[in-house]
Amino acid sequence: MNIRENPVDLYPSRRLNEPAWYDRRDPVVHADDRENAPIGPERVREFDQNGYLVLPGLFSSEEVAVFRHELDRIREDARTGDSGETIRERESGAVRSVFAVHRNNALFSRVAGDERIAGIARFLLGGDVYIHQSRLNFKPGFIGEPFPWHSDFETWHVEDGMPRMRALSCSILLTDNTPFNGPLMLIPGSHRHFIHCVGKTPDNHYRMSLQKQEYGVPDPESLGELVFRYGIDMATGSAGSVVFFDCNILHGSGGNISPFPRSNLFYVYNHIDNTIQDDLREKSPRPSFVAEREVFAPLDIQQEHYV
Amino acid sequence: MNIRENPVDLYPSRRLNEPAWYDRRDPVVHADDRENAPIGPERVREFDQNGYLVLPGLFSSEEVAVFRHELDRIREDARTGDSGETIRERESGAVRSVFAVHRNNALFSRVAGDERIAGIARFLLGGDVYIHQSRLNFKPGFIGEPFPWHSDFETWHVEDGMPRMRALSCSILLTDNTPFNGPLMLIPGSHRHFIHCVGKTPDNHYRMSLQKQEYGVPDPESLGELVFRYGIDMATGSAGSVVFFDCNILHGSGGNISPFPRSNLFYVYNHIDNTIQDDLREKSPRPSFVAEREVFAPLDIQQEHYV
Repeated sequence: MNIRENPVDLYPSRRLNEPAWYDRRDPVVHADDRENAPIGPERVREFDQNGYLVLPGLFSSEEVAVFRHELDRIREDARTGDSGETIRERESGAVRSVFAVHRNNALFSRVAGDERIAGIARFLLGGDVYIHQSRLNFKPGFIGEPFPWHSDFETWHVEDGMPRMRALSCSILLTDNTPFNGPLMLIPGSHRHFIHCVGKTPDNHYRMSLQKQEYGVPDPESLGELVFRYGIDMATGSAGSVVFFDCNILHGSGGNISPFPRSNLFYVYNHIDNTIQDDLREKSPRPSFVAEREVFAPLDIQQEHYV
Repeated sequence: MNIRENPVDLYPSRRLNEPAWYDRRDPVVHADDRENAPIGPERVREFDQNGYLVLPGLFSSEEVAVFRHELDRIREDARTGDSGETIRERESGAVRSVFAVHRNNALFSRVAGDERIAGIARFLLGGDVYIHQSRLNFKPGFIGEPFPWHSDFETWHVEDGMPRMRALSCSILLTDNTPFNGPLMLIPGSHRHFIHCVGKTPDNHYRMSLQKQEYGVPDPESLGELVFRYGIDMATGSAGSVVFFDCNILHGSGGNISPFPRSNLFYVYNHIDNTIQDDLREKSPRPSFVAEREVFAPLDIQQEHYV
C-alpha cells in the first residue's frame, strides 16, 4: 500500500507544492496514571503547553564524568571513523554523531533504561516504550554549523513510517549548554501544529539530512508566523541536566564559534503501540541504526548506578 | 620596501608557521582632551578595559526607520546586485554587505559625519578621523552563516597596510540584536593582545574573506586561552543602539536560524595620522571600496537631522 493513496495518513508532508498546516490529532501527554507521576503536575503542564522540559541536575557530575569518558573513548576509537553509524560535519569532517549507542555500547544501553529518564518517557507517553533511535552528538567548538528548524516527527513519519505523535526525545547534556555555544532552540507551542513541508525527499536523504537538513524544513512564512505567535526559547543548562522534548516541536540550533564543544547523549522513546509501519513510509527504509525497525520489545526500566 | 624585510613592523602576522602573541604597543583610548569628552568617564574606562561599548538609543526609532527605508531601497536596487561593491552569502547568494556607502550614498555619507558617532570616534582616537571602510551588513533570517573570530586590525594591517592601532568600528543597529539572531560576540580584553595568525594570504583573499574568513583567524589554542581569561560577551541591543569596538578586539558571530534578519550600518574610523601605507602591505591592494587609499581628508563632523 502506498502512502500517497492512503487516506488515513493524518500528517501528510512533502506531497503538495504549497505549505499547509494540520492540527495535531494526538495528545502531548498520554499519561493515564497521573497519581504515580515521576514529575510534578506543574512540570507535566509545562511539557504539555510548551512541548519541552528542562530538568536540571538529573545526573550528577560524577555520572557525567563517566559518560564523557566513554564518549571520548568512542570518538577516539579508530573503528568509529570507518563505521556507517558515524556522521561527520559537512565541511570539517569532524565527527558529529555516533548512532545506535543503545544497541552497540554496554554503558549507554544501560542509560537508555535508566528510570530517571525512561520512567518519565513511559509516564508522558502513557505506557511501555522502546528506543526508536539513539545517538551521541558532538557540536565541536569553533566550527559547529547551524542546524535549521525542523520537527523530528515530520522525518520519522515520512521517512520511517511512524504513524502517530507518541514519541519524545531525551537529551542528556554532557557539557554546559550556554547561549554562546549553539544550544538547542525551540519554538514553544509549535508542537500543536503539523506543518506540511514542501519538496520531495531525495534518495538516501538520511545521510545528507543528518549533516544539513534541506527537506522536511517548514517554509519561511510558516516559521515566521509560529515565532510571531510563540517566540523562541533556548534550552540551556549545566552538564547533567536533561531536556525532554515532544517529537513534533520545531527546534534547531545556531552555529558554535565558541571554543566550547557541545555534547549530548540522545534517546528517542516511542510507545510500543506506535511502532513504524512499512506502508506509511514514502521510500526505501533508512538504515536501522537511524530508525529501529526490528526490535520493538518494551524497554526494561530500572534504577541504575554508574559510579 | 617589502614588509617582510621591514624591521619596524610592530604587529607581524601570517609570516611564521607557529602562532605568537605580541603586546599591544598603542593606547586604546588616544583622547588628549578629556574635559570635553562626549561620553562619561565610566564609559571611557569601559571602552579602554573591554575594548567595546554599547550605547543604547543613540538614534531614535524615527531615524532608524529612515535608515531602513534607504537600506531596503539599496538592496532592491537592481544595480546593487551587479556591483563589485556587494558581497553575497556563500551558499544562498543573498546580499550580505554593500560597501562604500559613505561615498556612494548621500544619506549614509551624512551619517558618517554625524556628531553623535563621529564625535565619539574623534574623541577616542584623539583627533581628526576619516572613514577607512563603510558598509551595510545584512544577516538574513533562517540562513545567516556563522563568522569566525578575528581582529579587524590584523586584516587591515596585513592586507591594507594600516600601521598602528588607532582605528575603531562603529555599528549602528538597524534591527534588534538578540541572543537569537546571531549577534556580535566579543572577547572583552582581547584587544590588548595581537595574535600572529598562521597561514599565508591567498590572492584576492578579500572577496572570500568577507564571506567566510579562513586566513587571519587566530589558532584554536590562542582563542581558547583568551576565552578562558576573559570570557565572551554578546553585544545585544535594540535598533538605534550603537556598538563601538576597538580595531583589534577579537569578535565573530554565530549563525542566524531565527526568522529575524540582523542589519547594521557600519563605519570604520581611522585617525588621519594612521593612514594606510603601501609599503606595509604584503600583497597587491584590496579594492578601494573595501579600504580607502586615496581620500584621507579629515571628516567634517556636524549635527545631523534626518526626520
